[in-house]
Amino acid sequence: MRNLKAIIAYDGTNYYGFQRQVDVPTVQDALEDGLYHLTQEEINLIAASRTDRGVHAQGQVVNFETTSPIPVDRFRFAWDNAVADDILIKEVTEVPADFHARYQAQGKIYEYQLLNQTLPSVFARNYTYHIKQELDYQRLEKAASYLVGVHDFASFQTSGSSVNSTVRTIEEFSMDFEEENRVKLRIAGDGFLYNMVRIIVGTLIKIATERLDPEVMSEIIAAQDRRAAGPTAPACGLRLIKVKY
Amino acid sequence: MRNLKAIIAYDGTNYYGFQRQVDVPTVQDALEDGLYHLTQEEINLIAASRTDRGVHAQGQVVNFETTSPIPVDRFRFAWDNAVADDILIKEVTEVPADFHARYQAQGKIYEYQLLNQTLPSVFARNYTYHIKQELDYQRLEKAASYLVGVHDFASFQTSGSSVNSTVRTIEEFSMDFEEENRVKLRIAGDGFLYNMVRIIVGTLIKIATERLDPEVMSEIIAAQDRRAAGPTAPACGLRLIKVKY
Repeated sequence: MRNLKAIIAYDGTNYYGFQRQVDVPTVQDALEDGLYHLTQEEINLIAASRTDRGVHAQGQVVNFETTSPIPVDRFRFAWDNAVADDILIKEVTEVPADFHARYQAQGKIYEYQLLNQTLPSVFARNYTYHIKQELDYQRLEKAASYLVGVHDFASFQTSGSSVNSTVRTIEEFSMDFEEENRVKLRIAGDGFLYNMVRIIVGTLIKIATERLDPEVMSEIIAAQDRRAAGPTAPACGLRLIKVKY
Repeated sequence: MRNLKAIIAYDGTNYYGFQRQVDVPTVQDALEDGLYHLTQEEINLIAASRTDRGVHAQGQVVNFETTSPIPVDRFRFAWDNAVADDILIKEVTEVPADFHARYQAQGKIYEYQLLNQTLPSVFARNYTYHIKQELDYQRLEKAASYLVGVHDFASFQTSGSSVNSTVRTIEEFSMDFEEENRVKLRIAGDGFLYNMVRIIVGTLIKIATERLDPEVMSEIIAAQDRRAAGPTAPACGLRLIKVKY
């Protein structure tokens, strides 16, 4: 058996999230169907992140076992041809038998894209969160600075999630104004709770539009209560950029 | 009767072009259905440009007559709400009775977007023409310079078109490297023949990938023969940016 690792991009618009579900199309279904087409094997792949419905990826990482002898370059090409255009197999490599895309992930980088202008955009509508109100970016950046470091992020997970610990490290937060009115918020961390990035972004936007004191962010962290934070920002603005090992 | 003018953006991906057709969805259908919903009138609107299937618009202009007394701002808002998210009504204004969106157009600006990198992009796939080969941009720009001015563009129209004259003026050509590997070619002119922009782009790309002498462009113009020019570039890279009056 070979253990293959792949880096995958997808436009999540037309999928009900990554993880396989009954009766609705998911990215995992599409990938596994493509693998079946290629190998005639019913492969169960493991993904670094089970992204939600409408969330996108530029650098999702998966791994799976196969008996297929196809060389990795040809494997990438053939697999990519067996999936729809909204999924791209960027790279396939052979890895040691013990490589596990989820358990061995050391960190992830997410990007959240905002479109800050009066009218929506027909081209960016599925890839950005459209915000009409003026955003105070200085306030937003200052508020975000309180998140960087090791904190208990219990306030930033969807209630009902069960994890052993809600302590995580946010290694970096940055803003990038690539196009006029189009802002990329980039968040790197060692791991993220369920909906954590979207709740962080929803909270930052609340602070930036309502012109709250950026220091409220420390109070929200300290509260360890989901009700203290802002709303969950929409899925379409979110992209998984990179998984670190 | 009021004569209303509107500026409209659309993602052309899911439409069979602008113009009404039997049994397939078009932008005109969607706009007129929205108007009917709003006014209960069966309105026939006039568009500056009948864009082809898959072509996009940021600044299409239409006009139509209506007896509706709804003020223009509210008209814009209500009409926009009555159409799908891939169409945006950007502006509605009242214009003199003799304003005609097509006949009175003095010029148009088109943009053609290239994605020049090895792998395709899942996010840009419907909005750019993906080119794997290296492009010689200096050669491309030099070749394009021969197009600027008044010329007979018979070589750059799809055979079988019938127009009185194939003489047109290209007022400006420019390249904009907004993102890495994403290039916008901008072409402004007083009017364009059928498929003219896409044939121009296909010819420029042929020159830039095959490293032809940029001067072949003058020979292609002089030939006044479609067979002298390069292929028609795909629809998805093209956007109608602005119509001038």
